[in-house]
Amino acid sequence: MSLALLTDLYQLTMACGYWKGGHAEEEAVFHLTYRRPPFGGAYAIAGGIAPALDYLTSLSFTEDDVAYLATLTDATKGPLFPADFLAYLRNMTLSLTVDCVPEGALVFPHEPIVRVRGPILQAQIVETALLDIVNFQTLIATKASRVVSAARGAPVVEFGLRRSQGIDGGLAASRASYIGGCAGTSNVLAGKRFGIPVVGTHAHAWVMFHQDELHAFRAYADALPGNCTFLVDTYDTLDGVARAIEVGKELRAKGYPLLGVRLDSGDLAYLSIEARRMLDAAGFSDTKVVASNDLDEHVIGSLLEQGAKIDVYGVGTRLVTAYDQPALGGVYKLGATRQADGTWREAIKLSEQPIKISNPGVLQVRRLRGPAGELVGDVIYDSEVGFSGPVLHDIEDPTRPALSPGFATAEDLLVTYLDRGRVAREPDPLPAARERAARDLAALSIRSRRFMNPQPYPVGLDHHVHTRKQQLIAAAREQDV
Amino acid sequence: MSLALLTDLYQLTMACGYWKGGHAEEEAVFHLTYRRPPFGGAYAIAGGIAPALDYLTSLSFTEDDVAYLATLTDATKGPLFPADFLAYLRNMTLSLTVDCVPEGALVFPHEPIVRVRGPILQAQIVETALLDIVNFQTLIATKASRVVSAARGAPVVEFGLRRSQGIDGGLAASRASYIGGCAGTSNVLAGKRFGIPVVGTHAHAWVMFHQDELHAFRAYADALPGNCTFLVDTYDTLDGVARAIEVGKELRAKGYPLLGVRLDSGDLAYLSIEARRMLDAAGFSDTKVVASNDLDEHVIGSLLEQGAKIDVYGVGTRLVTAYDQPALGGVYKLGATRQADGTWREAIKLSEQPIKISNPGVLQVRRLRGPAGELVGDVIYDSEVGFSGPVLHDIEDPTRPALSPGFATAEDLLVTYLDRGRVAREPDPLPAARERAARDLAALSIRSRRFMNPQPYPVGLDHHVHTRKQQLIAAAREQDV
Repeated sequence: MSLALLTDLYQLTMACGYWKGGHAEEEAVFHLTYRRPPFGGAYAIAGGIAPALDYLTSLSFTEDDVAYLATLTDATKGPLFPADFLAYLRNMTLSLTVDCVPEGALVFPHEPIVRVRGPILQAQIVETALLDIVNFQTLIATKASRVVSAARGAPVVEFGLRRSQGIDGGLAASRASYIGGCAGTSNVLAGKRFGIPVVGTHAHAWVMFHQDELHAFRAYADALPGNCTFLVDTYDTLDGVARAIEVGKELRAKGYPLLGVRLDSGDLAYLSIEARRMLDAAGFSDTKVVASNDLDEHVIGSLLEQGAKIDVYGVGTRLVTAYDQPALGGVYKLGATRQADGTWREAIKLSEQPIKISNPGVLQVRRLRGPAGELVGDVIYDSEVGFSGPVLHDIEDPTRPALSPGFATAEDLLVTYLDRGRVAREPDPLPAARERAARDLAALSIRSRRFMNPQPYPVGLDHHVHTRKQQLIAAAREQDV
Repeated sequence: MSLALLTDLYQLTMACGYWKGGHAEEEAVFHLTYRRPPFGGAYAIAGGIAPALDYLTSLSFTEDDVAYLATLTDATKGPLFPADFLAYLRNMTLSLTVDCVPEGALVFPHEPIVRVRGPILQAQIVETALLDIVNFQTLIATKASRVVSAARGAPVVEFGLRRSQGIDGGLAASRASYIGGCAGTSNVLAGKRFGIPVVGTHAHAWVMFHQDELHAFRAYADALPGNCTFLVDTYDTLDGVARAIEVGKELRAKGYPLLGVRLDSGDLAYLSIEARRMLDAAGFSDTKVVASNDLDEHVIGSLLEQGAKIDVYGVGTRLVTAYDQPALGGVYKLGATRQADGTWREAIKLSEQPIKISNPGVLQVRRLRGPAGELVGDVIYDSEVGFSGPVLHDIEDPTRPALSPGFATAEDLLVTYLDRGRVAREPDPLPAARERAARDLAALSIRSRRFMNPQPYPVGLDHHVHTRKQQLIAAAREQDV
């Protein structure tokens, strides 16, 4: 299925405008960034990089795509797009250079997660799909990392497909949840496609189908003795635990373990403590207590405070939809265009809110680390100009004194994955992205990781970008007066 | 691409259990319902029906699907699924009978939106995908209807792809928004695939690319003179309006209209009033003022209260993610199973919350209307038993006196789309679903349509289902003690 039309119409009308004006092949650079960390936190985890690269490398307008575009009309009832322009699209071959943050890396406000450089027509057309893919998976990877960290080492399994936002909403959420640290998913297609471990046993319907709960557990144990985690709350949860233990003894006699009991409603703190006590008393101390039912990082934190005895968390709706903030406000802004003389002309977009003023140039991020690898600060600089030193000028308040954090090592975050349309580097496999997320998070100060009033992580512009930005703002305001 | 694995693993382990127990072909009936109307409203609009039927009619386990399932293991490290079971899946042909509410119809809490009847193994496997598809599109169609009604006749265009939850999150949202009353979308692929009108002109990047705003508007007008709605807020909004008017005069001289100006930031109430005044003063009274920027039904209502002069609303993030409630809590519950003697055995699931206790039987909904076609009440009854009369027993409080609303006509809501796996009726085309939604909404009392504390619409169980439910609850509680 061609995704060339997975874009806003205005990208194509602008593309037509660039083409008509003779600008289609002029070089431009765009940056995909976000402005505010989601969920009141201080960080995000880059997600969707490999799917975004897949989209780019398979981008091509089919005959069918341009035939559809040829049917669109304008106010004069004439064709919206000239036939020559559609032929241009049909023959277009991707020649963009695309740099990305490796998937799973921590990213902070204003940092380019994706940098797209090349013919402005192409760079414009890909905006919407890149935002769609990267915004959502970054959002969910970040949410998952919060839920996983709240669980303090207990595995978190993603159960959200039935409440996800469409088919790919579910698949992409399973993928991103795994990057963020989930141990597995209930989503079988995500398991097949992405190699994520899949888990599941039975639902309430299984119990309702049988004459009673005991018969239901026994029938399941007969059919799949090596996969017995019984859902115990169809009628009364603790009665259900007693019946699970009864069938667990029968399983044990046949050499199979009672893997777990699952609590899916009621007072999970109390019920988990009671279930644990009953299991231990019956000699099932290896049997896991699995809990689910509208969990998120805050509910899990509260359960742990109450002494809940939960070994595995099943998290669905609130994870896969990022319930408390279901969209990341990622944007894709023009940084600069190449002039006829080969020099770059930086672009600026004003706003009454300083946070919304774009950063000009061809931007790269240098990440500074302390002696133990801990993250100490990131500097956004213009890679065409070069790094002007580890001094961070505040982005949202340019009048604040610049920071100069001490550091031991520095590395550039953006890596070239596509070089003029050709694959320059394969994206990391999913497990590598997952490990990077865990490693990066461990290197982030607890001050920036906490949920309540986290300390913003130091990100600034280097001296050159800062100075150019202030000049461009002044010039644009002058022009405007 | 096969979607057979778009399911929770537990559906397949239960399927395996039914198969091993010799129950795979036993007849069961499941109902897909929701419990609480979204967004604090009193209704929902059924969405996702045609895509759900597409999913069902193309359901088939491929060689590749079962090869993946064969790799899964249980606690003994042996295969989770026996080879014979996988062969059964591979050869499975859908033989379900599926009744649905026609797409676009109003649906109320506890009413079956989809009823699935047939071999329990099959009915179980399809649960997750049906919930995923119907939950999300019902949610978005409902949200769209609220936004559209807040706009009081001004067209609402959906602009949300970049912030949607994944690729299909965007496509499905565009489709459902159209059902709910949106006039068009920016999503070109949704336009191609679903025949939805597409709209769009240019973004900030177009202005930033050119030397200044005036040159940018003029270049756009040169390239696409029949599609000129200028985005005026890249630098200063009202200066932008003045420049749009300047280029509008040039367009007019060439015989083209200035279609609109778009405001995308700032004080939309004030700016729209000023823009309207400037346009009218310059003789552009047909030019539309388009507004966007985090709009939803509440913001639009507030803008109108302030006297905003907005002709077209562009609504994105808050519509396509249903920002204030990003999931509909739809459920899929077993209603009854057929016994060896051919009689139905009703199922019940208890809960401490009466709202979560399932309704037993093979359920149908009879909708009662007054003489002018207005909706007066819905009765849930068992279609195997027959309708026991227009008396509504409260579902959440069975002790309340039953209602007997006066009515002129009655019709059954659920219609058979698949009969033992064969297509019995084609789903309605999208425009028909959109018209049905508008017609049904107009027939709903304003008391149930308002946003603030709407009056719940009368939905009840008929006498038979009510009585059986109370008997089953008593029996289940007795067994459990």
